[in-house]
Amino acid sequence: MVKDQIIHDFKEIQNSICNQLEKMDGKGRFIEDKWDRAEGGGGMTRVMENGEVIEKGGVNFSAVYGTIPDNIKNALKVKGNNFIATGVSIVIHPNSPMVPIIHMNIRYFEIDSGEHWFGGGIDLTPHYVVEEDAAYFHQQLKQTCDKYDVEYYPKFKKWADDYFYIKHRHETRGVGGIFFDRLSSTSEKEFNDRFDFVKALGNSFAPIYTELANRNRSKAFTIKEKDWQLIRRGRYVEFNLVYDKGTKFGLDTSGRIESILMSLPLHVSWPYNHQVEKGSEEEKTLQLLKKNIDWISNLN
Amino acid sequence: MVKDQIIHDFKEIQNSICNQLEKMDGKGRFIEDKWDRAEGGGGMTRVMENGEVIEKGGVNFSAVYGTIPDNIKNALKVKGNNFIATGVSIVIHPNSPMVPIIHMNIRYFEIDSGEHWFGGGIDLTPHYVVEEDAAYFHQQLKQTCDKYDVEYYPKFKKWADDYFYIKHRHETRGVGGIFFDRLSSTSEKEFNDRFDFVKALGNSFAPIYTELANRNRSKAFTIKEKDWQLIRRGRYVEFNLVYDKGTKFGLDTSGRIESILMSLPLHVSWPYNHQVEKGSEEEKTLQLLKKNIDWISNLN
Repeated sequence: MVKDQIIHDFKEIQNSICNQLEKMDGKGRFIEDKWDRAEGGGGMTRVMENGEVIEKGGVNFSAVYGTIPDNIKNALKVKGNNFIATGVSIVIHPNSPMVPIIHMNIRYFEIDSGEHWFGGGIDLTPHYVVEEDAAYFHQQLKQTCDKYDVEYYPKFKKWADDYFYIKHRHETRGVGGIFFDRLSSTSEKEFNDRFDFVKALGNSFAPIYTELANRNRSKAFTIKEKDWQLIRRGRYVEFNLVYDKGTKFGLDTSGRIESILMSLPLHVSWPYNHQVEKGSEEEKTLQLLKKNIDWISNLN
Repeated sequence: MVKDQIIHDFKEIQNSICNQLEKMDGKGRFIEDKWDRAEGGGGMTRVMENGEVIEKGGVNFSAVYGTIPDNIKNALKVKGNNFIATGVSIVIHPNSPMVPIIHMNIRYFEIDSGEHWFGGGIDLTPHYVVEEDAAYFHQQLKQTCDKYDVEYYPKFKKWADDYFYIKHRHETRGVGGIFFDRLSSTSEKEFNDRFDFVKALGNSFAPIYTELANRNRSKAFTIKEKDWQLIRRGRYVEFNLVYDKGTKFGLDTSGRIESILMSLPLHVSWPYNHQVEKGSEEEKTLQLLKKNIDWISNLN
C-alpha cells in the first residue's frame, strides 16, 4: 500500500531530523511519547526541553484514521466517510532571541472516496530579522522546489505569506517560507514526484536549521532582547491558537492535546500595549514583518 | 435615548470599579487609553500593571457602532444592518498564585431592526481552588440574581459551566460563576428590570473581588506554586484565544487589539506535558475543574 510507504518514510524523516537536531544542539535529548487515538491511529511525539540551543522543540509523527468528523468534511468539501492523515510536524523554540523559531510540516491526506493529496510548509520566525538569514532560508527552499517544479517556489512563497499572517496584528508571523496544500495528482508518476518533493522538503529541514542556529547561537543578548523574544512568542501563540489550521484540525479530530500544543513556547509574555522605540532593532523587525518581500533578490 | 443612558451608566460602573480596585490594591494605579474605532465608536481602556495584588488587570469600557459585519450577522442570526454594542469587560491577573483570576463582562447589543438585549457574566479562576471562596463567590452571585429572578442563578450558573469550558482539556476554566446572553424584553418595565440586574451585577464585582483578594493576598507561596500559576494562565490563554466569543467579536469587528487582548496574562508558561503529583494541591484543583458542582450546597 502506498500509504504504508508514506508512513514508513515519514517516520524515517522524523528519526533523521531528531538525530541531526541532537547533534546540532550538543546537549539536549529528545524524549519520546507514543500515543494512541481512541478513534484510530496514533503517533510518536518527540520533545526536547532545556537543550543548549533549543529551549523547547517538538518533532511529531502521527498517522490517524477513522470516520471523518462532519466539521472537517464540510471544511474540506470532500466526499467519503473515512480518512487517513499522516504527517511530521515540527516547531522549535530556541533559548536565544538571536536564534529564529522554525516550523515545518509535511502531511498526506487520503479519503475513501479516492481523493488524496500532500501538503506542507516551512516557515521561519526570527525574533530579530537578519536579512542575510532570511535570504539564505528562502534560497534553500527555492532550490528544493526548483528541482521539482519551477512554479512551486513563487506560488508556495506567496501562499506562505498569506497563510502565516496574523490578521489582527497586521503582521506576518515571521519572514515566511513556503506553504502548500491539496497537492493532488492524476498519475502514478505525478504522485511519486509530489511524494519525492515532500520528502526532499522534510530532509532539507535539519541542515537549514543547523546552519541558521550555528550562525546565531553564540551572539550575546541583553535582558531587553530576551523580553522582546517573549513578546514575539506571544504573537506565535496568537497565530497558532487563533488561525492555524493544523492546530484546529488536531483539536477537532481529538488528537493528543500535548502533541498538538507542543508548538507553544515554554515562557511567553503579554505586557499591555508594548511599543517599540524609534530606530531600534525591534522597530526594524516589525517593519519587515510584511507580505510580498522578495528576500532573495533584495540581497543579491 | 435609552442607549445613551446605558452608555452613561456603564461608564460610571467602570469608574467606580477602578476606584475600588485601586483602593484594594493599595499600590497600583490604572492608566487610561482612549481609543476610536475607524468604523464608528470607540472606548476607554484602563489597565493596571505591577500593583501590589494585581500583576495585570484591565477594566475596559467600549461603545462601538456601525454596519454589522456579515459573519457576526450570520452568527447572531439577526436582521438589520447597523448595530451598537456597549459594555464593560474586566480581567484581573494577580501576582500571587493564591489569589484567583477574575473576569466580568456586562454588555448591551442593539440592532436597527429593533432587536436588543443584555448579556454578561462573571467567573472565577483560582490557580488553587479554595472551596470556601468558591462558595462565597457563588453565594454572592446568587444573592444578586435572586433579587431579580430566582430562575436566573440556576440557569446562568449552568450556562457558565458550559460556556467557560476548555473542551480540548476536558476542564472548566475555573469554578464558574454566571453567564447569560440575549436577555431581551417585551415591555419597558421588563427592560428596566434587566438593565437594573446588569448594573447590580457590575456593582457587585469590586466588593466580591476585594473580599477574595483580601482573604488570600498574604498567604505565602513557593516557586512550585508560582510555576503552577503560569501553567494555569496558559489554560486561560487557550480559552480566550480558542473559544471566547467576546474575543472573537472584538477581532471580527476590528476592535482595538490591545484592549481586547489585555485579558492575556503578563507571564505564561507551557511546559510540555506537565503532570500533577498524586495527592497534591494541584491534583485536587484539577479534580474540581468540572461542570455541575454545586459550590454553595457542598459547603453548607
